Amino acid sequence: MWDIGVDVVEVQRFRALDYGENTEFYNRVFTPREIEYCLSFKNPAQHFAATYAGKESVYKAINSRIDIELHRIEIVRDRNAPKVNLMMEDCGGPEKTDSPPQIKVSLSHTSSYAVAFALAVFEDPEQARSIK
Amino acid sequence: MWDIGVDVVEVQRFRALDYGENTEFYNRVFTPREIEYCLSFKNPAQHFAATYAGKESVYKAINSRIDIELHRIEIVRDRNAPKVNLMMEDCGGPEKTDSPPQIKVSLSHTSSYAVAFALAVFEDPEQARSIK
Amino acid sequence: MWDIGVDVVEVQRFRALDYGENTEFYNRVFTPREIEYCLSFKNPAQHFAATYAGKESVYKAINSRIDIELHRIEIVRDRNAPKVNLMMEDCGGPEKTDSPPQIKVSLSHTSSYAVAFALAVFEDPEQARSIK
Repeated sequence: MWDIGVDVVEVQRFRALDYGENTEFYNRVFTPREIEYCLSFKNPAQHFAATYAGKESVYKAINSRIDIELHRIEIVRDRNAPKVNLMMEDCGGPEKTDSPPQIKVSLSHTSSYAVAFALAVFEDPEQARSIK
Repeated sequence: MWDIGVDVVEVQRFRALDYGENTEFYNRVFTPREIEYCLSFKNPAQHFAATYAGKESVYKAINSRIDIELHRIEIVRDRNAPKVNLMMEDCGGPEKTDSPPQIKVSLSHTSSYAVAFALAVFEDPEQARSIK
Repeated sequence: MWDIGVDVVEVQRFRALDYGENTEFYNRVFTPREIEYCLSFKNPAQHFAATYAGKESVYKAINSRIDIELHRIEIVRDRNAPKVNLMMEDCGGPEKTDSPPQIKVSLSHTSSYAVAFALAVFEDPEQARSIK
């Protein structure tokens, strides 16, 4: 079983939300590591927009199987390619999360728009058994 | 065998085509269910654009295998996640359509752009047999 | 093993780079076939932008496995659907490239933006053996 997610975000939405004046919003949506990463750039809004689009695209790709909030989907920058980190302590039951999905996300942005795409592949234990 | 499709559409294209004055165009491209869904919003153009992008992305993902017209690819909203409904009565021969593909589509839009992505997986009967 | 890549490009970036005055740039980034294809249109910038986005999206989808430069990733137009041609003579070692990945790319553009998406599937020889 697999699923996909796409998200497009206007950079302007984040440009209009200064971090210093909207810290509470940022803390509710982003993880400390994401915030630190985005603020390390001269134009954080583009990176907040891309990170947000990444989170949303992953959410769309997994939410039929995993009940998780946006701030528990972390987009981690590993050199160039972004990685997805699901902080799943209390999301869904074991029947949902015992074999975590393989998730890839890709991000891109211009000065005006950020686009993200995610693909999640859930290993079906039933089928895996019938193949081996 | 699998294939993908992406489509980006300017919302303005649909904003410029008022439904009341262009009903024929809409009926040629969209299904009654799609039209009803999009018109249920205050800003139908964004939803027509997203639906159109969805149809186009699915078309691109399947047209190497299935010969189908755009108005036969229906994007159905099932709570949040869109579903794809292929109305295939007379499309392609049985050799093409006897095992319908698994298709996922994801949509996203801003007030200016709609983006859609589709992934189609065609089960290869030959290979399926060799695995089981 | 599989991976994805998305890329969004402003058409304006290419509109501002006239081919005649920036031939060296175009030759460094695009293949002769790509340049010929894009210049065959009245508005080459849109096609250069879509081709560039396609190359970037493929690069993102394969670069964890294949060490390749952008001008060696060729987007070939085959009637409607674009095909990917990796010119891999001297990229990576045999351990990386002995089973070339299956790659699909899809392109879309408006007059302002080009979006591309790529999906690459690397055949894992180990797993392939265990299934057959």
